[in-house]
Amino acid sequence: MANDTLQGKRPAGIPRQGTRGTTLLDAVEGTLADFLTAQIAALDAVDPALGGLARTTRDLVLAGGKRLRPTFAYWGWRGAAGPGEPIDPVLPALAALELMHTFALVHDDVMDDSATRRGRPTAHRIFAAQHGPRFGSAAAILVGDLCLVWADQLLARSPLPTATLFAVRTAYDRMRVEAVAGQYLDVLGETRPAEWTVDRALLVARNKTASYTVQRPLQFGLALAGSPAAEVNDAYDRYGLLVGEAFQLRDDLLGVYGDPAVTGKPAGDDLRTGKPTTLMMLARKLATPAQLAELAHDPAGAVTPADGSGGPHLARLAQVIAETGAPARVETMIRERVGEAVSLLAEAPVHDDARAALVELASQATERPA
Amino acid sequence: MANDTLQGKRPAGIPRQGTRGTTLLDAVEGTLADFLTAQIAALDAVDPALGGLARTTRDLVLAGGKRLRPTFAYWGWRGAAGPGEPIDPVLPALAALELMHTFALVHDDVMDDSATRRGRPTAHRIFAAQHGPRFGSAAAILVGDLCLVWADQLLARSPLPTATLFAVRTAYDRMRVEAVAGQYLDVLGETRPAEWTVDRALLVARNKTASYTVQRPLQFGLALAGSPAAEVNDAYDRYGLLVGEAFQLRDDLLGVYGDPAVTGKPAGDDLRTGKPTTLMMLARKLATPAQLAELAHDPAGAVTPADGSGGPHLARLAQVIAETGAPARVETMIRERVGEAVSLLAEAPVHDDARAALVELASQATERPA
Repeated sequence: MANDTLQGKRPAGIPRQGTRGTTLLDAVEGTLADFLTAQIAALDAVDPALGGLARTTRDLVLAGGKRLRPTFAYWGWRGAAGPGEPIDPVLPALAALELMHTFALVHDDVMDDSATRRGRPTAHRIFAAQHGPRFGSAAAILVGDLCLVWADQLLARSPLPTATLFAVRTAYDRMRVEAVAGQYLDVLGETRPAEWTVDRALLVARNKTASYTVQRPLQFGLALAGSPAAEVNDAYDRYGLLVGEAFQLRDDLLGVYGDPAVTGKPAGDDLRTGKPTTLMMLARKLATPAQLAELAHDPAGAVTPADGSGGPHLARLAQVIAETGAPARVETMIRERVGEAVSLLAEAPVHDDARAALVELASQATERPA
Repeated sequence: MANDTLQGKRPAGIPRQGTRGTTLLDAVEGTLADFLTAQIAALDAVDPALGGLARTTRDLVLAGGKRLRPTFAYWGWRGAAGPGEPIDPVLPALAALELMHTFALVHDDVMDDSATRRGRPTAHRIFAAQHGPRFGSAAAILVGDLCLVWADQLLARSPLPTATLFAVRTAYDRMRVEAVAGQYLDVLGETRPAEWTVDRALLVARNKTASYTVQRPLQFGLALAGSPAAEVNDAYDRYGLLVGEAFQLRDDLLGVYGDPAVTGKPAGDDLRTGKPTTLMMLARKLATPAQLAELAHDPAGAVTPADGSGGPHLARLAQVIAETGAPARVETMIRERVGEAVSLLAEAPVHDDARAALVELASQATERPA
């Protein structure tokens, strides 16, 4: 479909951009849309209510988002496959990562009871509006399950050699287990924020974000190329860890200081849920006794204002965190990680266009406003 | 592992039983236990909290259950592969179905907020006891997700030809989508019991139970044999639909009249949740105006007694349903379906030992006390 525009032309500045107007993201989007249309028709034929479930799921999948995982997987693949390889055979696999991501987001939002995602109501809120909150959670759990199964179905459509697909699935399975493990540590941390530490927050970031968003997508892409050179795999692993941690650190900052109009999430969402992020753990570590008293005043849960908005209390918490110097420290950590990632890429045996794209992505993913 | 005892000896009366003391279920259990031990070690190495998550998941998987899906898949395979084929290469695939089933049960229990399963606390209740109900639901959703991913990993370990594994995955994906679709119709039905009908209840039974418990496991087994003859596939499809519907109809009866000590579920669980089962829809159809008034008195939710037990109200509802004659009608429906399934097996081109086993299973699965 995007065969003629993406089979190896140098990206025009912005790494996700192909030439002649067709972007990688358009190609992924098209693959997803085609696949979802077929699934809707199949479920509609069983029962219109199931068609409705499938349509809502499609709308959630196609609601936008940064498509970071297909993007990293694409460049992970391109870095090994080189600029001449046609993209069509790997498109289903790239798009499958996005279906898998919708699974993760929808289930996360149920767990956190988040109200909005990508500027729209979350899945469980959409369904809750139809038949109440219990139905909302149940239907959203099922939407997530469906996306995970669909991701497998789409992945299976990649016309690749058996050994290649086996290696791809191995990377994919590892990614999925780590995503679940990271999310478990995340929700566990929210139950005991007082016992959490900077180290544990970084452990969550490594499992939940670095692995899932950058490392494994890159290695998944490498596996797609059918030539998993150990040095490339290692370079992707190290780059992924650094950029992934930096990505999560940016997320921590956005979770407190992000603009809801840009992030699509409520203001101060992490403060509301009491998430013990690296930012929060650092703030606690750097705080004066007076600041600590303010920070510790409201452990998890108690900070939720009745109207669901940020409220003056959250604004004050954000201010105290800033006064501890933690946000500046986190900015430094991001810069250090991105710098190190860019340096190691210079030595990595990957094709030049991919190297350039990954350098650019390291900044884009960690300096973003949302 | 069970290679020497299960490679084709005639079953000794009870279909699930191999000879020389080793049963199919022991072999499946052993495969699961070995796999889970390795996953626990891997997650423990990342963080002890993740090891704990993995251990709780293992205990849920190994807590018993009827293992119907591996059993049907085994005989579906044996029916085509014949009595001489060694079982070892297909054991990971058979065991994977049980991991997938744990995923479905754990998520179902979250959606229904069920308190017990297999006579023990459900996953979300176990975790809720650690850190409260919100953590309980979140952790249980993740346990389910983990089981679904693990099922894929275990399935991938089956040393089978690529074309075979591809066909197996196709049956597996279909099974998973139908399981999700059936569960969605199930929870949807609970939101609008007044609008539900016998036909819709049977639609749920076909998608949620027939497909997921009997039809697709049999076809999954057939795919494992690597020789998907159309007549066998068709026979499995028809047998699976009949026995699967009968299985669900038995479940409907047990959901109202089952002994909690045997079913492992609370008394009158379906009445408590207001589930519009075929039994309930028939009762409503057959009821006198006076009976209907009693049945309609409490729509979904309102029948839950504060102490979580059945309570006198549920006992009275069960009695009214009996008086409508619906349970007797459901018993007839079960008998008719099992009879038809047994007849069609007589003509089906499957190996004799599998035919005998499937005849026996048709009764076992539909005349069970739990």
